[in-house]
Amino acid sequence: MEDRIRLYELVTQNGRSASPYVWRIRYSLAHKGLPYESVPLGFTDIAKEFGGRFKTVPVIEHGATMMAESWDIAEYLDSTFPERPPLFGSAGERATLRLLENWIGIEILRPLFRLYALDIHNSARPEDRAYFRSSREGWLKGMTLEAFTADRTARLPQFREGLLPLRTHLARFAFLGGSTPNYADYMVLGLFQWVATVSTLPLLARDDDVLRSWLDRGFDLYDGIGRDSKMQPLFE
Amino acid sequence: MEDRIRLYELVTQNGRSASPYVWRIRYSLAHKGLPYESVPLGFTDIAKEFGGRFKTVPVIEHGATMMAESWDIAEYLDSTFPERPPLFGSAGERATLRLLENWIGIEILRPLFRLYALDIHNSARPEDRAYFRSSREGWLKGMTLEAFTADRTARLPQFREGLLPLRTHLARFAFLGGSTPNYADYMVLGLFQWVATVSTLPLLARDDDVLRSWLDRGFDLYDGIGRDSKMQPLFE
Repeated sequence: MEDRIRLYELVTQNGRSASPYVWRIRYSLAHKGLPYESVPLGFTDIAKEFGGRFKTVPVIEHGATMMAESWDIAEYLDSTFPERPPLFGSAGERATLRLLENWIGIEILRPLFRLYALDIHNSARPEDRAYFRSSREGWLKGMTLEAFTADRTARLPQFREGLLPLRTHLARFAFLGGSTPNYADYMVLGLFQWVATVSTLPLLARDDDVLRSWLDRGFDLYDGIGRDSKMQPLFE
Repeated sequence: MEDRIRLYELVTQNGRSASPYVWRIRYSLAHKGLPYESVPLGFTDIAKEFGGRFKTVPVIEHGATMMAESWDIAEYLDSTFPERPPLFGSAGERATLRLLENWIGIEILRPLFRLYALDIHNSARPEDRAYFRSSREGWLKGMTLEAFTADRTARLPQFREGLLPLRTHLARFAFLGGSTPNYADYMVLGLFQWVATVSTLPLLARDDDVLRSWLDRGFDLYDGIGRDSKMQPLFE
């Protein structure tokens, strides 16, 4: 019998999973058909739960193994469960995805934080908000979350234009991974899931049909793990 | 006996290969260990050579097959020579590389054209220059190549910053493809080869050691197909 996997997650006040990195692992576990027990944590639970050993989620526990960092976890899942569908079909695919992760971080994740930093704060559990604000305003060298996001509506057009590489690809393929989803899909779906958890500003234009079709397919994956009634609308 | 491959290339006045897309195929042919005959063309030879059938190079000819588009050629090489080292180790690797190609096109290739459009003109064969100027100034809605590139030195810092995803990756791996090069390396090496053919402005900062080491390794590949005495310096 396989050891049970526990996945430590970050949740908002409404209980929805709220970390783009955790979503990658949720999709990865589903891709491999691995059941797991979810352990929901708020921002301020993380340091307490792990006694300082891990500062971020996802964290997984599997037998004697306990580890953080979504990328390392994905590699661990592939090496530990080689009989299940691989996340990385070749060494070159793994390396190329890791390179892509850098671009996605800079061109999508970072701009999303600029759009939604205050929404993340407001959707956090009340007891987590002061910590979130002070740590993030520290990153921002003292700028308030309100000031940081004040011009966010004006930033939307440029953000949307930055998704052109995705649209070009999805005009040709059903998934970022080609005819079937791969970790590229999970990275980007995870970002949109994160937005769907916290958003008070629709991210995408009504007529963005290529992205809409892919998001529909993506959110339907694995019996729709990405779908629930708490999702905020992604489209205008 | 295998049919001989002919590769139609774009060359500058000094005879050096001058298309980033052709360089991808030069590296791809070397990766697969496939010999080929090079057919050098100038900008204005292309339409004549192919009677309008192809407007861009690379074009390869192999037996009864004649085809353009670097991506299609790479796929053709893998499917036609399955016994040789694959360019794409898995279907997911192929799709991920094609997605990456979109980002590279927007984040690297397009800014490079902005830096080097006039240098490309000046390095072309004299008989190709009027065509290059009028076609490209047409793309630019009448702006001259001189005006388009006038502020290029001021654009260098932002361009260099845009290479951060590559640097982050190459701090971990010998090649973009991981421990061995893959098509990601060939796409980006091809861009730097293009710059090395035409440049009168060193692209990279003297202290950019991570990129420098990778470029050294990359240009050494396959007995140094990327190295010759006509290369312009890439570093300040």
